[in-house]
Amino acid sequence: MPAEIPADSVGIVTPQQIDFPGPVQLASGRALAPVRIVYETYGTLNAARSNAVLICHALSGHHHAAGYHSLADDKPGWWDYYIGPGKPIDTNRFFVVSLNNIGGCHGSTGPTSTNPDTGRPWGPDFPRLRVRDWVKTQAMLMDALGIDVWAAVVGGSLGGMQAMRWCVDYPERLRHCVVIASAMKLTAQNLAFNEIARQAITSDPDFHDGRYLEHDTAPRKGLAIARMVGHVTYLSGDAMGQKFGRDLRRGTFEPGTEATIEFQVGSYLRYQGETFSDRFDANTYLLMTQALDYFDLARDFNDNPAQAFAKTGSRFLVISFTTDWRFSPERSREIANALLRAGKAVTYAEIDSEYGHDAFLIPIERYRQVFGTYMHSIEV
Amino acid sequence: MPAEIPADSVGIVTPQQIDFPGPVQLASGRALAPVRIVYETYGTLNAARSNAVLICHALSGHHHAAGYHSLADDKPGWWDYYIGPGKPIDTNRFFVVSLNNIGGCHGSTGPTSTNPDTGRPWGPDFPRLRVRDWVKTQAMLMDALGIDVWAAVVGGSLGGMQAMRWCVDYPERLRHCVVIASAMKLTAQNLAFNEIARQAITSDPDFHDGRYLEHDTAPRKGLAIARMVGHVTYLSGDAMGQKFGRDLRRGTFEPGTEATIEFQVGSYLRYQGETFSDRFDANTYLLMTQALDYFDLARDFNDNPAQAFAKTGSRFLVISFTTDWRFSPERSREIANALLRAGKAVTYAEIDSEYGHDAFLIPIERYRQVFGTYMHSIEV
Repeated sequence: MPAEIPADSVGIVTPQQIDFPGPVQLASGRALAPVRIVYETYGTLNAARSNAVLICHALSGHHHAAGYHSLADDKPGWWDYYIGPGKPIDTNRFFVVSLNNIGGCHGSTGPTSTNPDTGRPWGPDFPRLRVRDWVKTQAMLMDALGIDVWAAVVGGSLGGMQAMRWCVDYPERLRHCVVIASAMKLTAQNLAFNEIARQAITSDPDFHDGRYLEHDTAPRKGLAIARMVGHVTYLSGDAMGQKFGRDLRRGTFEPGTEATIEFQVGSYLRYQGETFSDRFDANTYLLMTQALDYFDLARDFNDNPAQAFAKTGSRFLVISFTTDWRFSPERSREIANALLRAGKAVTYAEIDSEYGHDAFLIPIERYRQVFGTYMHSIEV
Repeated sequence: MPAEIPADSVGIVTPQQIDFPGPVQLASGRALAPVRIVYETYGTLNAARSNAVLICHALSGHHHAAGYHSLADDKPGWWDYYIGPGKPIDTNRFFVVSLNNIGGCHGSTGPTSTNPDTGRPWGPDFPRLRVRDWVKTQAMLMDALGIDVWAAVVGGSLGGMQAMRWCVDYPERLRHCVVIASAMKLTAQNLAFNEIARQAITSDPDFHDGRYLEHDTAPRKGLAIARMVGHVTYLSGDAMGQKFGRDLRRGTFEPGTEATIEFQVGSYLRYQGETFSDRFDANTYLLMTQALDYFDLARDFNDNPAQAFAKTGSRFLVISFTTDWRFSPERSREIANALLRAGKAVTYAEIDSEYGHDAFLIPIERYRQVFGTYMHSIEV
């Protein structure tokens, strides 16, 4: 619980929801109905409706990006460092919309929702999703809120992929696109780690072919291992070394004992895995990683990303972090170069950071400055 | 099956075994008896007994390092590129000894062996091992073979740790020490991946607290996931990209279908995991990763590795590979620098390679040259 709500916080926020009867046609060819989207807003939509900013969340994210749900909350939303009065996404200027994507497990329609055809949870029968399906449903929310054009669409990691997809599918409906620690497609190594995560989940005997809710259980161990694998890839080797080194939590290096040692880093990872299993749905994790795998911005454009970006009227900010080995600076330079070839205005910044991929969530002064300067330059 | 045995092969080899009644005192304080060691030799021990080279194997290695067990073998031993007539470890000059370490699962006493106290497999009751226990039992084999001093002790990865430990525990019993793609201790990131591997194994319901053999089963899925995690860390991101890219094995990227796509890289990894589960024991994997975790060459020397190396009469070759991110060149430079501070003769080479940690097993011309030149300089 915060002693008091900080002055630069958006304060107490209340999630809202909107229900669309559907059906919504998905990239897979299937239709989804009904569709509920849970979202939060921060700041005020101006009379010209020109100051709206969309926040797209990453793999394990959700709608609660800033502020507190109650005074009892022990921490604020996941991007509170960057959203609020006077912060880079300045709620004194912008009307910020942050949603839980469909397929999610934080209130929007997803695998834990009821399948109207069966009266049981969707589970593994929930339609496969692609990034373009999220963009499409985000546009439905946009329309419902009476917004014609986003001042900016902003996202990190998988969220950055959504921001780029906006430029392809709705090239005139955003003025600025902010892509942070992202990539135009996954590398083979990225795909490999996602495959391991899915194997861990589906190998868990409590997975029950995805119908675990009907068995009143969940593949907790498998999901925890999946999260541990993911978490290691979010951190840089140096950051892990500085945070944990070879410190022991339990046991001893001394000879003459059989007691198994436990390293702090192992204990930390297990804790991360277990708490994630408490709050996240395994089918959602499978869906999200599959959407990541599928994403390939330039595939429909002869593998030419400049062509993918050709039609958009947006301007761009692209940010990467030096020690991010999940979506390395090389991947962001590919985005920036494609934008230059497409003749688009792009600001690219590679931020020195020791925090790996997680850097996009962490307070880093130069990141804040670059991000804030760019956002401040956006006319509303 | 080779069409014919190549001229630069050691040819058909037959594993040998030696039984020690024990007990052997281990670092844990426990004693192990009896102890069987399975090994192979290539080349001929000279009259002066001065040309013996010890090969120390890595995590999943074993005694079969070179040649063929029969004409029906489809491939030779795991280091056949580097051991044979005219090869870097030249069997025209050297008498090469390659063993399966205790705790292993290829014939030497390990968790699948019978515990004489119970008549059942040792399983999880097999004593915890440290690198120094392997060096001690390697010295027992050395004595039994009538060798006083090794011309060289050679190892890659975990094998390199054994080679370094020889210099601490038997400083006068080796003339040369060859440490390839290794480290004086694991990083936090290394520890994290090992922890994930162990979690995958012990979370498998077929693990049965390690007594799976008594249940006539094995934690195959958990071990496969552990191997997949390991395998990704053995390869460089670039090598995976070049080998697999985003090539599909099954399914399609085309919209309008729900068929799940399968990437070549995922299929490859699953195959690696499954075949590993067929041939490797899960308790051995746990033991080996724990020994890796424990290893810290300088811990008993005030964290001063130069002090650890101080007493040895050995000379050194240290080799690293540019894209190895499991044991990066930085780790090898730490070894070389410690040796220089200790006043030891050291040749250090950082080999350009795209193959990640696996490079130490792969034919690379400059690696072969550096390794061969050094080994050729050793007087026998």
